[in-house]
Amino acid sequence: MKLTILGCYSATPRINTHTTSQVLEIKNHILLIDCGEGTQVQLRRYKIKFARIKHIFISHLHGDHVFGLVGLISSFRLLGRETDLHIYGPKGLKEMITLQLKLADSWTNYKLIFHQLTSKESELVFEDSKIQVYTIPLNHRIYTNGFLFKEKEGERKLDINAALKANINKAYFRKLKQGFDVENEDGVLIDYNKVTKPPLASKSYAFCSDTAYHEPIIPIIKNATVLYHESTFLDKHQNLCAPTKHSSAKQAATIAKKANVKQLILGHYSTRYDDLSEFKSEAETVFDNVELAEDGKSFEFN
Amino acid sequence: MKLTILGCYSATPRINTHTTSQVLEIKNHILLIDCGEGTQVQLRRYKIKFARIKHIFISHLHGDHVFGLVGLISSFRLLGRETDLHIYGPKGLKEMITLQLKLADSWTNYKLIFHQLTSKESELVFEDSKIQVYTIPLNHRIYTNGFLFKEKEGERKLDINAALKANINKAYFRKLKQGFDVENEDGVLIDYNKVTKPPLASKSYAFCSDTAYHEPIIPIIKNATVLYHESTFLDKHQNLCAPTKHSSAKQAATIAKKANVKQLILGHYSTRYDDLSEFKSEAETVFDNVELAEDGKSFEFN
Repeated sequence: MKLTILGCYSATPRINTHTTSQVLEIKNHILLIDCGEGTQVQLRRYKIKFARIKHIFISHLHGDHVFGLVGLISSFRLLGRETDLHIYGPKGLKEMITLQLKLADSWTNYKLIFHQLTSKESELVFEDSKIQVYTIPLNHRIYTNGFLFKEKEGERKLDINAALKANINKAYFRKLKQGFDVENEDGVLIDYNKVTKPPLASKSYAFCSDTAYHEPIIPIIKNATVLYHESTFLDKHQNLCAPTKHSSAKQAATIAKKANVKQLILGHYSTRYDDLSEFKSEAETVFDNVELAEDGKSFEFN
Repeated sequence: MKLTILGCYSATPRINTHTTSQVLEIKNHILLIDCGEGTQVQLRRYKIKFARIKHIFISHLHGDHVFGLVGLISSFRLLGRETDLHIYGPKGLKEMITLQLKLADSWTNYKLIFHQLTSKESELVFEDSKIQVYTIPLNHRIYTNGFLFKEKEGERKLDINAALKANINKAYFRKLKQGFDVENEDGVLIDYNKVTKPPLASKSYAFCSDTAYHEPIIPIIKNATVLYHESTFLDKHQNLCAPTKHSSAKQAATIAKKANVKQLILGHYSTRYDDLSEFKSEAETVFDNVELAEDGKSFEFN
C-alpha cells in the first residue's frame, strides 16, 4: 500500500505547490483521490500510468479538489482510453462534467460511470475481492466526504510441512486457509489453527479533507493504519477554523489520537505558511507519529 | 504592444508545454486570450499581475482553450478582487462557469460580466478611446472566433515651432492635431497639413486559433501588424487537417501572405512534434516573416 501526494495545498495552484490530489496504490489498484487543477500534469511528473486509473474519488466540489477532473477525462479520451472509468463524488459532479463535454461537442470513447453520493451516513461505495471503500461524512461548508480504503483480511497462511505431516489431502488446503477444520486421510478431524497461521494484518487508509474538527468520524476511522487529516491552519490561527470549517494541526492530531490510528499525515495547508515544520511540531504535542504531506512525496504503509 | 505566449500547444497540458493562452498588452490594457488548464500558474510564472486583467477573450469551448478559466475566476475571488471582469466567448460559457461556482456554493465578490457571442459575422465586441476588438469567425468543429485587436489611429503630431511661426494661438493646437484648418492671429486660414505630421501607424494583432484553412478571414485581418495563426500540423500530415478542422504551417503562411500581414506567428502545435523548426521552414516557403510561438516567449510589435 503506497500513497503518493500529487498536491497538498489549499486554495490556488502556484508555481511550486499544487492543490489536493493523491494516488493510492492498494492491492493492484491505482486509485485517484481528488483532482485539483493541474492533476494530469502531476500524474505525468510522477509517472503514474493514466491507463491504470479506473476509479476516481472526489471529496467535494470546491475547485481546489475538482477543477482538474474535466481536463483529465478529456485527456483520457485523447490518449485513446477504452476502459471504463468510475467516478465517486457528490451529486452535481455528473452535471458539471457532462455540461462541459457537451459544450465542447466532445465525448468519451470509454464508459464514464458516475457514482453520485448524497448520504450523510458512511456507506460502502466500492468493493471487490481485495478491498473496500467507505465514505467518511465530513463537516465542511458544502457536502463533503472523506474516504476509508480498507484491505480485506486475506486468507490464513498455510504451514505446508505441518499439513503434509498431518496427512491432509492437498485438495483441503484452501479450506484450511479459509479457517475450516478438515478430515485428514485417516478420517481424523484436524483443527485449522494447528496447520495455519493468522493472515497478515490488513491495512487501511483514511483520507479526511476538508473538514472542521469533527468527532463523529472517529468510529469510522478507528484503528486505521494511516490517517490523512487536513490541517489548513496552525493553532495560532484557530479563529479561522470555525468560519471556514477547516482544522488546525492540533485538532487533526487530536482526532488521530482519539481514533487510535498508527500514523497521521497532515496536509491541505493554507498558502499563508512558508514553513511547514510548525505543523508537525504542533501536532506532535498531541500525537506521536506525524508526517507532513508534500507535493511529490510517497508513503509506504508497512 | 506586446504579446506574451503562456501556452501554445494543442490537446493536453504536459510538464513543459501548456495549452493555449496569451497575454496582449495594448494601450495600457492587459488582455487575456484563451485560458487552458494551468493558465493561472503561467500568469504567476511570467509575473502578469492578476488585478490588471479586466478582459478575457475565449475563442471556443474546447478544453485546451477554456478549462483554466473557472480556476482563474475562483483565484481572483480568493485574492480579494473587486474590479469588474468582462469575459467574451461563445454562448454556453456563462452556464459552464456559473454551474461550477453554484455547485461549490461559491460566489465572486466582483462583478462577472459575460459577453456571449453567437454571430457568424465579424462584430465589434469591445471599444474604448484607444482600442477596438473585433471577432474573426473561424471554421472549426464547434463555434469559434478569433479576435482582432486594433489600436485606434492617434492624433496627428504637431510641429510646435512651425505652428508658433505661423502665429497660431495655442488654443487651436488641439484642433490642428485632430486635422482641422484653423485661423491664425492675423485671420489667415492655416492648412493643418503644414504644421502637423501624420499620426504614428496604428498597430493591430489578429489571433486565429483554431481553424481550418479559411479564406473568408482574409478581408478581416487584411494588413494586420501581426497574425497568430494556428498550425497544428505540418504539410506532411495534411490529411489530418480536414477531419479535425485544423491548419498546416503552409496553410497558415498562405493566409498571412494573402492578407498581407507584416508578421506571422505560428502556434497550437500538435504534441506529436518534438522539433518545431520544421513549422518555421515550411511556412517560410510561402511567407517571409515567420516566428514560432513558444511558451513564455514575448513579442514586441514595432
